[in-house]
Amino acid sequence: MPDDSAQYWMGFDLGGTKMLAQAYDLKWNVVAKERKRIHPGTGAKGGVERIIDTINEALTKAALNPKNMLGIGIGCPGPIDMNKGLLLDLPNLGWQAVPLKERLSAAFNCPVAVLNDVDAGVYAEHRQGAGKGARTIMGVFAGTGIGGGCIYQGEILRGGTNSCFEIGHMQVMSNGPRCGCGQRGCLESVSSRLAIAAQCARAAYRGDAPHLLGAAGTDIANIRSGALKDSITAGDKAVEEIIKEAARYIGIAVGSVVNLIAPEIVVLGGGLVEAMPDLFVPQVAKAANKRVMPAYKDTFKVVPAALKDDAGVLGAALWAEYSLSKKEKAAS
Amino acid sequence: MPDDSAQYWMGFDLGGTKMLAQAYDLKWNVVAKERKRIHPGTGAKGGVERIIDTINEALTKAALNPKNMLGIGIGCPGPIDMNKGLLLDLPNLGWQAVPLKERLSAAFNCPVAVLNDVDAGVYAEHRQGAGKGARTIMGVFAGTGIGGGCIYQGEILRGGTNSCFEIGHMQVMSNGPRCGCGQRGCLESVSSRLAIAAQCARAAYRGDAPHLLGAAGTDIANIRSGALKDSITAGDKAVEEIIKEAARYIGIAVGSVVNLIAPEIVVLGGGLVEAMPDLFVPQVAKAANKRVMPAYKDTFKVVPAALKDDAGVLGAALWAEYSLSKKEKAAS
Repeated sequence: MPDDSAQYWMGFDLGGTKMLAQAYDLKWNVVAKERKRIHPGTGAKGGVERIIDTINEALTKAALNPKNMLGIGIGCPGPIDMNKGLLLDLPNLGWQAVPLKERLSAAFNCPVAVLNDVDAGVYAEHRQGAGKGARTIMGVFAGTGIGGGCIYQGEILRGGTNSCFEIGHMQVMSNGPRCGCGQRGCLESVSSRLAIAAQCARAAYRGDAPHLLGAAGTDIANIRSGALKDSITAGDKAVEEIIKEAARYIGIAVGSVVNLIAPEIVVLGGGLVEAMPDLFVPQVAKAANKRVMPAYKDTFKVVPAALKDDAGVLGAALWAEYSLSKKEKAAS
Repeated sequence: MPDDSAQYWMGFDLGGTKMLAQAYDLKWNVVAKERKRIHPGTGAKGGVERIIDTINEALTKAALNPKNMLGIGIGCPGPIDMNKGLLLDLPNLGWQAVPLKERLSAAFNCPVAVLNDVDAGVYAEHRQGAGKGARTIMGVFAGTGIGGGCIYQGEILRGGTNSCFEIGHMQVMSNGPRCGCGQRGCLESVSSRLAIAAQCARAAYRGDAPHLLGAAGTDIANIRSGALKDSITAGDKAVEEIIKEAARYIGIAVGSVVNLIAPEIVVLGGGLVEAMPDLFVPQVAKAANKRVMPAYKDTFKVVPAALKDDAGVLGAALWAEYSLSKKEKAAS
């Protein structure tokens, strides 16, 4: 029979297509886990019910007592009202103003912290990964889109109500490509996996990337990070040049942000970087150091993320522990 | 005979061409003042002596007892090592790594805080001006150059060692004009008074800005903010368009920064904005709101600076009071 008195924190990662609940004991070992697909048709109401089911199933499978759950941290791929615990907008699923904190704390009778998923990942890097001990850590996560997060003096950098650090929507190219946010020339429109795939598909179509053409064709849905990496290894110079240029733009954005907030550590992560760290990390570091003012040269390190897939769910649980314990302290 | 026991804080504003010492009583009334030109030829050593002389003369004139000086805050137009109180770089005067905190605390036997001059101005707006009560305030000061500052949760936003928030050196135009920092397309290279004057001089030379041509000619040294304003009032449409375009680029930079740090208040100041607030403030607000992601629209106010010339020297004194009192508290 399991220890019925053991306390734990619940981390939750709400993705674009799947969700993951993971419970941690007080030494941050995983003690329960459950994963589900998101059903796109069910709307926010059905989605929240599925989140609750996923947590309940994780607890049941591991025979954890819900009474011993100290709190839930839930990371979501969109802007958050951090005061109210509201998921403001999830355009891909059509969810808007979802009161996650209210619903989950009612369902589980425990405190809940709602945060942005990239903030969660960068917070995990700060506590247990590549950003330990620094005063200011920023993270850039490049995959299908580009997200960012910043930990300043041990806390997630945030606005008066909203989460922030949307580095993917800094303008890096005047009159650049159209971005999903409605603007032009955002970093995401230039350097995300989707932006790179679109350029590489053209190169493949023209015959400049024969290995990519053979392996993935010209449908950008099939041109994933792994296929890009393999085509470079096989000798597709055009693909390598496109990715170096994309990394250079990430470096330009990072350089502008270094001039603004002077981080000590810049963590690079996401599917693109994980597939090709040796290409991205030095390119970004070089372009950023070229871009910054003289006083900031070599004042920051560009490093790959140390935690992989679990950074988001772990960071959500760690942030719950930090922010909810802090509130208890302030109230007592 | 003056009250020999009255305590006061000393604010100091080190400009590019002049310096200003101003002492404040505990209710922030000015109780002493002295201003001097900087002699460019004397180097950092002579400069620091002149700073000390200026403070001493202010005290003597007002018959203030140096023993009652609670601390000195000195704002400088360059990056600062805020831990060591070092002025890192003042390219116009050729000063480098000047140990201002060490020199001034030795000369006056009191604690000293060294900070960036724009940070000082924004801090004053936070305490007594247009940014009161907000969690995050950012300032953009557009004059000969473009400086920025940010107050986050009541404190100057800073790096591990250095001051930061150099919004003038964010890239806003790919392959844009050359900037003094060595890069291309920085906001300062596009929207500073010098950048605007260079464009207006060409318009005047071509005959497109007859009023400006008559009043200031085509020498950019003579095309000051007041002359620009007067030429617009007199009907120089070309000048108005150039300035609107410059304001639009400030708005693009502000929009990118709103996506990053979600400030509630954006304070605009500096000679250009002070001369033409009705032109700059709405243009910047419009361009920034156009640029931000949907979740950040109308979450911030763009306002003109409320404090004028004295913001820098007042902010330096206020920051001395805040940061030096805080240190005393932590030590006791």
